[in-house]
Amino acid sequence: MTLKLEPGARLVAATHNPGKARELVELLDGRFDLVAAGALGLAEPEETETSFAGNALLKARHAADASGMIALADDSGLSVRALDGAPGVYSARWAGPDRDFAMAMAKVEARLEAADGEDRAAWFSCALAVAWPDGPVVVVEGRVDGTLVFPPRGTLGFGYDPIFAPEGESRTFGEMPPAEKDRLSHRARAFAKLKAALF
Amino acid sequence: MTLKLEPGARLVAATHNPGKARELVELLDGRFDLVAAGALGLAEPEETETSFAGNALLKARHAADASGMIALADDSGLSVRALDGAPGVYSARWAGPDRDFAMAMAKVEARLEAADGEDRAAWFSCALAVAWPDGPVVVVEGRVDGTLVFPPRGTLGFGYDPIFAPEGESRTFGEMPPAEKDRLSHRARAFAKLKAALF
Repeated sequence: MTLKLEPGARLVAATHNPGKARELVELLDGRFDLVAAGALGLAEPEETETSFAGNALLKARHAADASGMIALADDSGLSVRALDGAPGVYSARWAGPDRDFAMAMAKVEARLEAADGEDRAAWFSCALAVAWPDGPVVVVEGRVDGTLVFPPRGTLGFGYDPIFAPEGESRTFGEMPPAEKDRLSHRARAFAKLKAALF
Repeated sequence: MTLKLEPGARLVAATHNPGKARELVELLDGRFDLVAAGALGLAEPEETETSFAGNALLKARHAADASGMIALADDSGLSVRALDGAPGVYSARWAGPDRDFAMAMAKVEARLEAADGEDRAAWFSCALAVAWPDGPVVVVEGRVDGTLVFPPRGTLGFGYDPIFAPEGESRTFGEMPPAEKDRLSHRARAFAKLKAALF
């Protein structure tokens, strides 16, 4: 075999997050035939690893083995320097089972106030994994650095986007149309690496 | 880029275990120019993940980023069915800082006696990861099923080899010459997948 993803290949997208699924479709630009893990009735595995790369690998492996198809998984999140990298791999879990990111963003703000410093540095990370059934997994990572802003601004994007302004930008990801966010986001950077490796 | 390892490529082997290093050299068959992470003065990262694949990824990523070279890492261990998969990713840690596998094998036997059943099923797993500096990581896994035997038998191999007889064999891995073990081991199976993907 050669580790290449041929155009038109049918891939299962191992995400149960609608915002991520939409971004994956946009970034993949109609190149592949994506089907969602949920649509195939696949369960979500527990994300037991301590890193984005480890969790992306785990999700892709699980979806490929359960479906017999090539699987693409994303694991991503926000890391805050003054909070020693939290929420990190717990980014989604801070939002709870209802995916309440207004609450999660308030939690970041409260923790920062408790930390009582001026440091507002943060970064988004994205790990993408492509797994072949009973075969290899390829993992890449992208990152974008920026600054936290409160109160949250903008209704575009999803997750922690409204409190994150990427380097060199005054607008938050929540204020950028998807096409603009896709030019500089952590997910776009991870995709560029995936493309260089596998397309 | 294409995800291929060219013959003669210089790789850093991200292992500080001499037994594993020797097996890697044998399995790679002089195809690559392997240099040990220790010889480059690289520190061993903490193995914080819950899976062999996750830890292999973490070690390869760390060695590639620290050295600027393509890195190969191995994470492997013994899983015992009656002990819910223990020692698993803790296989090396059960042997302590002195890598005392006589003690670790005695611990497996004691736990099995405490579990008070007849089940002696176990398997060795091996995850191999190849990481490019600031680039992708490719991860593959191999497994061999077998039966635990006590007392330990044989002085060949390393680690838990003397208590593990692979399926269809009465001898333990500790009683098999390296060339024979290399034909059916978990590490050999992982290598076959790596070869199919990257050589």
